[in-house]
Amino acid sequence: MENRYCVIMCGGVGSRFWPFSKASAPKQFIDFFGTGRSLLQMSFDRIASIIPVSNIIAITNERYAPLVREQLPELADGQILLEPDRRNTAPCVAWAAYHVRALNPDAMMLVAPSDHLILKEEEFRKRVVHGFDFLAAHKDALLTLGICPNRPETGYGYIQIDKENMVDDTITKVKTFTEKPNIELAKVFVDSGEFLWNSGIFMWRAEAIINAFHDHCPDIAMRFDGGKEVFGTDKETQFINTEFSACPNISIDYAIMEKSANVFVQSADIGWSDLGSWGAYYEKSPKAEHRNVMHNCRTVINNCRGNIFAAKKEKLIVASGLDNFIVADNDDILLICPLSEEQKIKQYVNEVKANFGDKYL
Amino acid sequence: MENRYCVIMCGGVGSRFWPFSKASAPKQFIDFFGTGRSLLQMSFDRIASIIPVSNIIAITNERYAPLVREQLPELADGQILLEPDRRNTAPCVAWAAYHVRALNPDAMMLVAPSDHLILKEEEFRKRVVHGFDFLAAHKDALLTLGICPNRPETGYGYIQIDKENMVDDTITKVKTFTEKPNIELAKVFVDSGEFLWNSGIFMWRAEAIINAFHDHCPDIAMRFDGGKEVFGTDKETQFINTEFSACPNISIDYAIMEKSANVFVQSADIGWSDLGSWGAYYEKSPKAEHRNVMHNCRTVINNCRGNIFAAKKEKLIVASGLDNFIVADNDDILLICPLSEEQKIKQYVNEVKANFGDKYL
Repeated sequence: MENRYCVIMCGGVGSRFWPFSKASAPKQFIDFFGTGRSLLQMSFDRIASIIPVSNIIAITNERYAPLVREQLPELADGQILLEPDRRNTAPCVAWAAYHVRALNPDAMMLVAPSDHLILKEEEFRKRVVHGFDFLAAHKDALLTLGICPNRPETGYGYIQIDKENMVDDTITKVKTFTEKPNIELAKVFVDSGEFLWNSGIFMWRAEAIINAFHDHCPDIAMRFDGGKEVFGTDKETQFINTEFSACPNISIDYAIMEKSANVFVQSADIGWSDLGSWGAYYEKSPKAEHRNVMHNCRTVINNCRGNIFAAKKEKLIVASGLDNFIVADNDDILLICPLSEEQKIKQYVNEVKANFGDKYL
Repeated sequence: MENRYCVIMCGGVGSRFWPFSKASAPKQFIDFFGTGRSLLQMSFDRIASIIPVSNIIAITNERYAPLVREQLPELADGQILLEPDRRNTAPCVAWAAYHVRALNPDAMMLVAPSDHLILKEEEFRKRVVHGFDFLAAHKDALLTLGICPNRPETGYGYIQIDKENMVDDTITKVKTFTEKPNIELAKVFVDSGEFLWNSGIFMWRAEAIINAFHDHCPDIAMRFDGGKEVFGTDKETQFINTEFSACPNISIDYAIMEKSANVFVQSADIGWSDLGSWGAYYEKSPKAEHRNVMHNCRTVINNCRGNIFAAKKEKLIVASGLDNFIVADNDDILLICPLSEEQKIKQYVNEVKANFGDKYL
């Protein structure tokens, strides 16, 4: 157990879920399903029985430090890494790896986004434990969790497995990573049985991912090598505040996973959704009459089908004549738009910014 | 001037404008057009130059006393009559008449609802002054203002004029009162040139309307006769608190106007709207791009036509894909429904009441 670490990434902005997810309080900090726990807290709860709490690290943007401290009081200050700038996932993962390796040269890391939904938690834990066992025997492997697809989703990345190279009944060598496909291609992927969804959940030894950075993204590796001796010390923050912003802004998939020859995928059926959009939220939510989804609000609904009604606390929504809309009310913002336009929400947020500044972001 | 009185009725609930008009703050108290003055205040402003301020009386439900005092500080406490109960307009008018007659036996009264819009104020004042002149010569007459119709509106009552009995070029004997017609009948009415809209604005001598109550609604007249000597004294409130609730719940139209033989109408072109509904409000409001009406709110609008977007203060509404809807957000209530369903709002309010009690009314 003592070599198991978890790095929970919780610095994202979640703009596709605006106005519920705002830059001032992104979706991972929201109690999305009214269960009393935020997505971040659910991420913590999910792993706290298989990874020592003292080995759990949250990495986030420094503006969210108060939210993380409030929501995860179990973490000591040293377990919260604060990024001074947004640099996508590659610099984030690299820092976490250097940090964890300094604490424990034999550390194995689970890297987990905090804004996803995982409904089958026991199965998830089984896959994680199986992954740690695999890493103990395959010290250089980079392992990702791949989700068995249940539909030709065009919003996800796909991983093609290499059927000739099965390690066991769930873990396989990866053949290719594929970015979001069009619908025709997505159908081919799903029908082939050779593709899994890329969950963005990774496992590796800290040493292995650092080596991979040296091989495929030396820019980042060299920069962090420059501060090798400060990780895990009280000089780490100052080093990061000086160096982090100079890192390239790229994703771990693009920087490492798509380039490395040593990548494996474990297929997992864990009730996963990236909750990347209102549409994904709609799919995962229990339906009221006429396929409406009510989030947190009191409603009087007539002649409405297939909508999301989302509000906060005591808000009453009275609606009539809406089909397949998002109605999301968050204090000083009301969004009403067709569910089919969810991809345009980012554009609306940009219009809001252009017209009214940062007030509503 | 000293015989001219005005009774501003401001006790209505305005439920058709929910959620902007709520029982706790009905529409007459709202600054509907963002001009800085509520409809009640506009009603006061409109007449203050032709009727002495000390002769202006507001009659309302006792729960709205604080709102009236706040909005019309020009009125002394004795100029605000507080109904202990809702009893429609007949008991309201009767009380006001007994009260005013006690103050001045020669009093002539303008009875004005406070929740209407009158755009041509100068023309309105001309009609009122002309009405007072008429009453001075026709001491028993009951005079109503009739609005020249510009469309076959089915939401209003109509007044048929008696063309054989013209008093002058604007005042005519009334032939019949007609309740809200269906659309076919409304078209016939408008085409005939013999019908005016019933504005609910009345003028008469206090003595004349009290006599009419004796003739056509003795139940109410007898009850108020029983307190003849208390009106205008400090015992009036106690008398009203005992007797008012026993009055029948009926309108002045039904109790008196439709029955009296001595009713006249003055036709008036005063830019009038009863603002009885969101539709009426839409018609009267300036239109933004794509015929949308924005009330008080910040908006980012795409692909929306012919809607009302109404909110309070700093609320931002981002909307897409709505045509001809009412979107009205008032603190803890959001209403979204087609403008064509505005007649159903009362029903929605009833559903709200059934589900959530009085909290949102």
